[in-house]
Amino acid sequence: MSVTRPATIHGVGLGPGDQDLMSVRADRLLRSATHVAYFRKAGRRGRARTCVEGMLRPDAVEIPMEYPVTTEIPLDDPAYAACLSEFYADVAGRLRELAQGGTEVVVLCEGDPFFYGSFMHLYTRLKDDVPVRVVPAITGMSAAWTATGLPVTWGDDVLTVLMGTLPEAELTRRMAGSDAIVVMKIGRLLPKVRAALDAAGRLDTAWLVECASMAEERVIPLAEAGDRTVPYFSIVIVHGQGRRP
Amino acid sequence: MSVTRPATIHGVGLGPGDQDLMSVRADRLLRSATHVAYFRKAGRRGRARTCVEGMLRPDAVEIPMEYPVTTEIPLDDPAYAACLSEFYADVAGRLRELAQGGTEVVVLCEGDPFFYGSFMHLYTRLKDDVPVRVVPAITGMSAAWTATGLPVTWGDDVLTVLMGTLPEAELTRRMAGSDAIVVMKIGRLLPKVRAALDAAGRLDTAWLVECASMAEERVIPLAEAGDRTVPYFSIVIVHGQGRRP
Ligand SMILES: C[S@@+](CC[C@H](N)C(=O)[O-])C[C@H]1O[C@@H](n2cnc3c(N)ncnc32)[C@H](O)[C@@H]1O
Ligand SMILES: C[S@@+](CC[C@H](N)C(=O)[O-])C[C@H]1O[C@@H](n2cnc3c(N)ncnc32)[C@H](O)[C@@H]1O
Repeated sequence: MSVTRPATIHGVGLGPGDQDLMSVRADRLLRSATHVAYFRKAGRRGRARTCVEGMLRPDAVEIPMEYPVTTEIPLDDPAYAACLSEFYADVAGRLRELAQGGTEVVVLCEGDPFFYGSFMHLYTRLKDDVPVRVVPAITGMSAAWTATGLPVTWGDDVLTVLMGTLPEAELTRRMAGSDAIVVMKIGRLLPKVRAALDAAGRLDTAWLVECASMAEERVIPLAEAGDRTVPYFSIVIVHGQGRRP
Repeated sequence: MSVTRPATIHGVGLGPGDQDLMSVRADRLLRSATHVAYFRKAGRRGRARTCVEGMLRPDAVEIPMEYPVTTEIPLDDPAYAACLSEFYADVAGRLRELAQGGTEVVVLCEGDPFFYGSFMHLYTRLKDDVPVRVVPAITGMSAAWTATGLPVTWGDDVLTVLMGTLPEAELTRRMAGSDAIVVMKIGRLLPKVRAALDAAGRLDTAWLVECASMAEERVIPLAEAGDRTVPYFSIVIVHGQGRRP
């Protein structure tokens, strides 16, 4: 009886978007991959897939993992979590089967995989069954503060990373108490994030960075941003002002 | 009269240490650089320089920038800041002169240059005089949480980045109030950092990561670390436990 050794699943961080900012290891894994999996919304090309345009082998097998349509279920309804959980179990099952059959799979991850990434939901479901390796990457926030042209943290500065999805009062409290601030997952929540920064007395020095490191990159003082709808890839940065000789 | 266009100074983030985790752009800039500057302690090879061993052109001109010996001056003495300030002004002057004379210089930066990096002190002194470009990089903390094999932040988790140099009471207060925690600049301060985590009720789930991504990488539960002296490249990680479908 011949037993196949399971192959490795690679969770490969793509970095903030610019292909030139991928790690040498990510670049090599992507260009040689025979099987490439990525999340996307139904009917879309997929943001992670778009990041690697032109890099994959022409004969690479692509495995799009399409999020179930959940727009009718409120986010706080347990049915929402149940639906997503079933989806993750399902796609993890497909990747597990491939790996157990000896096929190495590269999973594309936006930014750094272990930092608020969706790959984490596959990782926890796979890591005890098949070898999984994670390639860290440049985060979206690193590209964002680099784009502002100002260092984000000095000396003993405290940096707080917040999600725009937190309640406004909690955002305000944490913004007021931190030296440097990063806010991610903004999307339609920009008015709330702006109000919280204002209440915390930090709006004046806040920057909005859209699509950091991408062709569409835009850096604007948040106070001048108006009520625009921001793209998915948007981050707010408030720089620390700590000790500097 | 011929006027030389000033050349660019590149602050190049090297990432956490493993050369395979440098960005494609950093790799290219390093391998082609004619002039390479880096900080180091007097009498040492330099940590950043060690990271690029074997990558530089054999004819690259090296510009070590040696920190002044300040061991007799207490950190909170104004003379300490004055001494460092003079040093940064001096080395910035050397790089400015090279750039103004048309020589491109690559400055090596550990991790991401704008995240608690020493390059920031040159950047602020140079950016108005000559072109300076910064290449972001994978931070030490990304490599550290990747090394633990556990995602660091889920859902709405708040991440707080703290320096071990903060007062113990402040460390405790901030550790108690955060979901995920990163502590950097630990060195001889491990007993204080451990005491603060303990007081905040977070010691049990804290990890100590030494030399993340390097050959000497070590991951230990902090409670089992004892009173070891940790290397300069050490980070404490406490993972968030947020929402996960
Ligand atoms: C689900 S999180 C994933 C974060 C990613 N793993 C990372 O390391 O940056 C998605 C959020 O990341 C932020 N983001 C990621 N890349 C970005 C970029 N290049 N520019 C602006 N924001 C970015 C946005 O705030 C977005 O809402
Ligand atoms: C002056 S800060 C520079 C941080 C750097 N710019 C970055 O992006 O990670 C130095 C601290 O970074 C942390 N550090 C950087 N790289 C590391 C690594 N590979 N492993 C562990 N700690 C690291 C250590 O806590 C160290 O005290």
